[in-house]
Amino acid sequence: MSNIIITIGRQFGSGGREIGEKLASSLQIGYYDKKLIELSAKKSGLAQSLLQDQDEKVTGSLLYSIVTGNMVGGSLATVNSVPISDRLYTAQSELIEEVSKTESCVIIGRCADYVLRDNPDIRLLSVFIHAPLDQRIKRGVEKYGIEPDNAKKTLERTDKKRAHYYSYYSDRKWGDVTNYDLSLNSGLFGIDGCVEVLADVVNQMKSGVL
Amino acid sequence: MSNIIITIGRQFGSGGREIGEKLASSLQIGYYDKKLIELSAKKSGLAQSLLQDQDEKVTGSLLYSIVTGNMVGGSLATVNSVPISDRLYTAQSELIEEVSKTESCVIIGRCADYVLRDNPDIRLLSVFIHAPLDQRIKRGVEKYGIEPDNAKKTLERTDKKRAHYYSYYSDRKWGDVTNYDLSLNSGLFGIDGCVEVLADVVNQMKSGVL
Repeated sequence: MSNIIITIGRQFGSGGREIGEKLASSLQIGYYDKKLIELSAKKSGLAQSLLQDQDEKVTGSLLYSIVTGNMVGGSLATVNSVPISDRLYTAQSELIEEVSKTESCVIIGRCADYVLRDNPDIRLLSVFIHAPLDQRIKRGVEKYGIEPDNAKKTLERTDKKRAHYYSYYSDRKWGDVTNYDLSLNSGLFGIDGCVEVLADVVNQMKSGVL
Repeated sequence: MSNIIITIGRQFGSGGREIGEKLASSLQIGYYDKKLIELSAKKSGLAQSLLQDQDEKVTGSLLYSIVTGNMVGGSLATVNSVPISDRLYTAQSELIEEVSKTESCVIIGRCADYVLRDNPDIRLLSVFIHAPLDQRIKRGVEKYGIEPDNAKKTLERTDKKRAHYYSYYSDRKWGDVTNYDLSLNSGLFGIDGCVEVLADVVNQMKSGVL
């Protein structure tokens, strides 16, 4: 039977990552989040520390090339370098394709839903997790130690980066309901509730009910 | 225990209405769709046939008032009529509040999620159903007898009206993932699959698991 790949897009502070981890653990399948960076570093030949900083970010191609001296001949016409964010995206996308061939798994972010959208060899369940702002702020402060005074700004900035990354590489709108097979408000269901709903759905997909 | 109200927003041709009907039947709870028109007619004192035509539409207030002669004194400054669409919205909103006090039920469209958003006396499950365009066209042609050549346009026009109606009265964006507690792609799960997922969630809400 085809592997089931659960991709999870998430608003910052919604608990999407934790839901993904617990879901993978409950289903006893693979889990890919930042681990993709480590694997991508090996694949692309770039230092992991460099890639870490570029994760789910878009680097303004031309400006970045100039600043980092990644230009040949110093002329705009002869730019032949590929920005690190693009290299990382390519390496991660290839890895996502490879991993999905090998095993059922959960993949967090990184446009995985878009990368796998037309793959006929897998069963894709594209998920998005969101929550009301006040609950995300609370989680951000408690869980990630974000300054309460700047919490709203930090959340919005992170989501803006994710949205930009997603739309840059996928040409879709991040958080548009039609991109996702299943979206959940973790503010209503809680972390464990979301895991329960998702595990039920995946188990029903596995057994052929869904 | 508080009534559980399941509101369902839906793309045209996604099967949202049918899912709602089957869900209500499976849970043995009330179902409100066009029935709200009949009840609203009684409430507002307007003819049902007139309201039917205004359902989930916004009437350009001033122009509509002029065309239908709903102006007093013939002067723009003395317009004191309320457009029929606004009267219908008000009557429907009051009914939605009343019904939600009385019984657990499924309500299709009509900004019910927005009307009930801050109601502390109920448990609200706000749902959105969508599906890929090709599947919605197929359903529109087979189920509603839409002309295949115009199907895409018909779908888009209907969704545009729903989106406009929703944003006009709610000040939210129709189809924005964050408005809904649970969104499903009926193209992946099928009509019965969506009913199954939703019934499971509601039953878990009832039993206190969610």
